[in-house]
Amino acid sequence: MQTSGRFLGAVREAVPLVHNITNFVAMNVMANVQLAIGASPAMVHAREEVAEFASLAQALTVNIGTADAQWGAAMEEAAGVVRKAGRCWVFDPVGVAATRFRQDLSDRLLALEPSVVRGNASEILTLAGLGGAARGVDAGDSVAAAEDAARALADRTGGIVAVSGPVDFVTDGARAARVSNGHPMMSRITVMGCSLNGVIAAFCVDQPVFDATVAALAAFGIAGEDAGRTARGPGSFQPAFIDALYHLTPEALDAAARIEEVA
Amino acid sequence: MQTSGRFLGAVREAVPLVHNITNFVAMNVMANVQLAIGASPAMVHAREEVAEFASLAQALTVNIGTADAQWGAAMEEAAGVVRKAGRCWVFDPVGVAATRFRQDLSDRLLALEPSVVRGNASEILTLAGLGGAARGVDAGDSVAAAEDAARALADRTGGIVAVSGPVDFVTDGARAARVSNGHPMMSRITVMGCSLNGVIAAFCVDQPVFDATVAALAAFGIAGEDAGRTARGPGSFQPAFIDALYHLTPEALDAAARIEEVA
Amino acid sequence: MQTSGRFLGAVREAVPLVHNITNFVAMNVMANVQLAIGASPAMVHAREEVAEFASLAQALTVNIGTADAQWGAAMEEAAGVVRKAGRCWVFDPVGVAATRFRQDLSDRLLALEPSVVRGNASEILTLAGLGGAARGVDAGDSVAAAEDAARALADRTGGIVAVSGPVDFVTDGARAARVSNGHPMMSRITVMGCSLNGVIAAFCVDQPVFDATVAALAAFGIAGEDAGRTARGPGSFQPAFIDALYHLTPEALDAAARIEEVA
Repeated sequence: MQTSGRFLGAVREAVPLVHNITNFVAMNVMANVQLAIGASPAMVHAREEVAEFASLAQALTVNIGTADAQWGAAMEEAAGVVRKAGRCWVFDPVGVAATRFRQDLSDRLLALEPSVVRGNASEILTLAGLGGAARGVDAGDSVAAAEDAARALADRTGGIVAVSGPVDFVTDGARAARVSNGHPMMSRITVMGCSLNGVIAAFCVDQPVFDATVAALAAFGIAGEDAGRTARGPGSFQPAFIDALYHLTPEALDAAARIEEVA
Repeated sequence: MQTSGRFLGAVREAVPLVHNITNFVAMNVMANVQLAIGASPAMVHAREEVAEFASLAQALTVNIGTADAQWGAAMEEAAGVVRKAGRCWVFDPVGVAATRFRQDLSDRLLALEPSVVRGNASEILTLAGLGGAARGVDAGDSVAAAEDAARALADRTGGIVAVSGPVDFVTDGARAARVSNGHPMMSRITVMGCSLNGVIAAFCVDQPVFDATVAALAAFGIAGEDAGRTARGPGSFQPAFIDALYHLTPEALDAAARIEEVA
Repeated sequence: MQTSGRFLGAVREAVPLVHNITNFVAMNVMANVQLAIGASPAMVHAREEVAEFASLAQALTVNIGTADAQWGAAMEEAAGVVRKAGRCWVFDPVGVAATRFRQDLSDRLLALEPSVVRGNASEILTLAGLGGAARGVDAGDSVAAAEDAARALADRTGGIVAVSGPVDFVTDGARAARVSNGHPMMSRITVMGCSLNGVIAAFCVDQPVFDATVAALAAFGIAGEDAGRTARGPGSFQPAFIDALYHLTPEALDAAARIEEVA
């Protein structure tokens, strides 16, 4: 496995344009997270321009957190463009267990072979058709319980599946790794997972997707650890987290990454 | 009147799922406020799923700040589901005096008998049909001037009406209380009132609604007082406020609550 | 040229209601920026009420960052109302080089003669039909390169054109000024430009638009300089920036403004 730091270095060098079709709650934080890590974010969803914009960007993230039929159609259109161009796109099935609409939209998006699917354990279990104990948009299942589901899902999409939690699990169906960076406060503020998608997408541009995803998870978790050292609560954690991402260096990422390849 | 602290303890214990159909400005802050107080927020508005999601959640908030006809229809649909299930829902008539569209939508929502209507004095006066001096989304009337309107509105809806201001006024038509916690900086940042709705909704789950609403107002105001002690301005007030909500204990809430029952 | 401080004093005195039709990423920050400077912001976009609301407000800002056809129609409707009433409106052509939809919408909005067009160099070059090297929503061109384009665009609209960058350039076609306040961190967080629009709009209410725009740019840049002195990164820069705007006095603005009239 390649060192994580070089992926961060590549983002800082290339400043990739990342196209995000994300939920209303996440948009501002996600943009600032991508800027802090060194990417150039754009939020574009309108049917009138989404395909044209998708053809300009280096990567795409899709998040169904506040989607409706029109936004869903825009997501399919953009993902279709990016897939055809052979570029990376990241899919986040927020709260997929909650409604039939999310399940149907997720099915259609999975058919467009996302480079990376990232979700919590309940979401990945739901996607894999194994049933989950999802409750709203929180994770009611453990990451360990979702490992088989993640492998099965990766076999279906041909891409990477990442399960977020206290210890993250990443697999391409064959290879797998666990990343144990992070801080408990990250689950006490909203849109952390959504924001992580943008870092994964930036790291994956012109890079091997499995290794880049693992590196992105480590970078994100390390920034959380840094922020947790000074934050007085979830409110002060947020600016501290953005500051930490901004100051994270490739060397610090390599030194602090806790990545374990799974046999 | 019951002690306020036990409502906070109940939220921390139950972690209720609160469904929010709110405005674009408020979504992120409102989610973080609900997480800080101990609830599990979800923002869901699409017609394709709003009724299904409303049936899953323990409470609902509806805020017309950036509504349009489609969002308005989703609000009515969700409120109808929640009312039929006998659960709590909170209605915030943001800027209702400003346009005919807001007045018509508010009329339809009031007919669905919100458990709690929360607004500033101008909004409550407008809703009660007494005319207000509203100006945009700010309060141009005093809370005291809206007390009779609040009682009349509570009689109409059969629920609670809460008027926010330097001293809050809460009534169910018969009983009434004033809550004098809070900090002047709370009116210098956006979406504080919207965020309060989410705390009220969480506090009301499986609880007596009048007492729970009063407790929520006190908790929110106390967190504002805490934040005001360290903030250097409205920018640093925001993270400090989230930190304060997160660290607020039932004991501290009981000790600092300034609640006066009105004869 | 009038002193800048008096424009800030006028905003604090009048607390103008500013109607914003802006992008989803910017809404919350933009509202807090306007509150901090002393204005009263409202975000209203629905076709059902946008004209009625535009007739109530003292100024309007329009930002196409996440527009679609419906929002575009609302922008045209609101701008039409404001123009007819002879009030000030500010147009921000975010990412106009990226898609045909943005270019067509911008053309229609320019025909409604915005009082102020504010963008980065690439956006102004694109608008002026001179072609730009735009990339997403970032500026790929220098401000200096856009000066002629800005003058040409001002001749077309009959209003003010402001080009944001390390040194801002403002012109009404004949007069011109450069404003060199600001801090590099302002380009490392999202929606700073969007938020600036709201300050310009507030400053322009009942004032000479060229001088008011220059003063708004100086005020915004000075707050950035203040925030940059204490921020540890882009995360902590944001609350510090809001605090700095809130504490900025007319005297401090006059003392720190770096404005140069161009011959």
